[in-house]
Amino acid sequence: MEKKIGIVGAGCIGSSLARDIRALGLGQITLYDHNPHYMRLCKDLNLADRYAQTLAEVAETSELIFVCVPVRIMADVIAEIASLAREHTLITDVGSLKSCIIDSVSPRLKDKIYYLPGHPITAGTIAVGPEGGREGIFIDAPYILTAFQEIPHEIEQKLITILTAIGAKITYMNAEQHDKILGFTSHLSHFIAFSIMNAAQQLSDDVGVNVFDYAGGSFRDVTRVAGADITMWRDIFMMNKVHLKDLYAILLNQTDLLQKFLEDDDAKSLEEFLSKAHHLRSLLK
Amino acid sequence: MEKKIGIVGAGCIGSSLARDIRALGLGQITLYDHNPHYMRLCKDLNLADRYAQTLAEVAETSELIFVCVPVRIMADVIAEIASLAREHTLITDVGSLKSCIIDSVSPRLKDKIYYLPGHPITAGTIAVGPEGGREGIFIDAPYILTAFQEIPHEIEQKLITILTAIGAKITYMNAEQHDKILGFTSHLSHFIAFSIMNAAQQLSDDVGVNVFDYAGGSFRDVTRVAGADITMWRDIFMMNKVHLKDLYAILLNQTDLLQKFLEDDDAKSLEEFLSKAHHLRSLLK
Repeated sequence: MEKKIGIVGAGCIGSSLARDIRALGLGQITLYDHNPHYMRLCKDLNLADRYAQTLAEVAETSELIFVCVPVRIMADVIAEIASLAREHTLITDVGSLKSCIIDSVSPRLKDKIYYLPGHPITAGTIAVGPEGGREGIFIDAPYILTAFQEIPHEIEQKLITILTAIGAKITYMNAEQHDKILGFTSHLSHFIAFSIMNAAQQLSDDVGVNVFDYAGGSFRDVTRVAGADITMWRDIFMMNKVHLKDLYAILLNQTDLLQKFLEDDDAKSLEEFLSKAHHLRSLLK
Repeated sequence: MEKKIGIVGAGCIGSSLARDIRALGLGQITLYDHNPHYMRLCKDLNLADRYAQTLAEVAETSELIFVCVPVRIMADVIAEIASLAREHTLITDVGSLKSCIIDSVSPRLKDKIYYLPGHPITAGTIAVGPEGGREGIFIDAPYILTAFQEIPHEIEQKLITILTAIGAKITYMNAEQHDKILGFTSHLSHFIAFSIMNAAQQLSDDVGVNVFDYAGGSFRDVTRVAGADITMWRDIFMMNKVHLKDLYAILLNQTDLLQKFLEDDDAKSLEEFLSKAHHLRSLLK
């Protein structure tokens, strides 16, 4: 029997999932987005088998539901779906944060409704909406699952087979570890990029020259993600602020070290510092 | 009469200049690099009309000389060429720093030997050597000239016509301003990228997980320039350390502000901060 898959939220990730599931014939998709404009675009793009009018419709017709909504409303949407879902339904999400969502959802889960939190680490995009998605973005990308409850094997496998089929590299870790690691690799990168842009404006005001006119490739690379969605990042920063503070302190330790080597004219230590960073970067394809 | 152009240093920038000058027929090139392997590569790539054995040979045969060597040795190489050059020779360079080179070179300039310091802001590359260069990298790229002495108009024009022909957008500013602005847009970007790599390793050690395995697009963008040449960046950091410290303080002001908004749960100010950064980034093509 064909798998009945619900997708709630037709943004970049939700619509990319829909594209892959359709292209690979992995199941029948019921799609829902609260934005009518997005729903029309999804129909034009032929992303689903069925376009639901309500969350209840998705919950009633799906055995596996991907919730791909902004992190701010993630916990409430998952909880609402869970309250509407049939027994043995597996709900998963793609949110950039895990602990706060799990903490909010888990007391609201009925018996025999399962929630397996997930987070695909895709190549990074600042695209939004159904048209922002692409086929194949999960191929060879890490896909973190932060399991927190016992889930019957055959139910968990419904998700695993889909993720395997779309090419994701599945890893398990706990939610706390996820929020720390992604807090560094993703959230802190954005934190720095936004800050550099505003610091550059501050410098422009100070020196009376538009310093952006002299932005070469390095500045463009370092600040690229400052073009990302503001509301999403406001929410992620606020929801992960405790980790973000600690992680930024780790970065500050390193910049302090680098400053110290410069102050001491310690060319040898400076070169070792840069060598280490250069080597680590070369290992990252 | 065809312009006689010397190029000293056949790295990425020197060889790119040679490519454009040859492709556009802007003059006869005498090329010199102290590295015999690079010289062989240049011959294979047919980058010059003449391959010099010594600096003296370049100095004797050129009316306009581009010095494209690492910043560490830049001042001494320019001073040596200046001591060997004929009257009315114009020397220029492409170094990432200006004040310290000018300070070192200017007392060593003979009368009627001119030095007009330059710095092309190209799209950014981590390529090295003659094979790292490309045609057309100066098109629409800012090219900063930090003039510090009176130069006869017709002599200055020898450089200006070449730069205009290769498509560079020429601007003048003083060396101090250059070192501040580029210290921010270029040097600080590298400073941050190297530091983030080492901080990520620190975090990996702390949590016992290789966090690089979870690097998505944002981390790759922000740290890309940590793949740049170590010796060059060691030298640039050391030579511009005073500005770098002040510029980093400007960035710290902004990250402190961002941290404060998070601490205060001040969603409105946080969103304004991110909006401003996002808008500035959208103006940067």
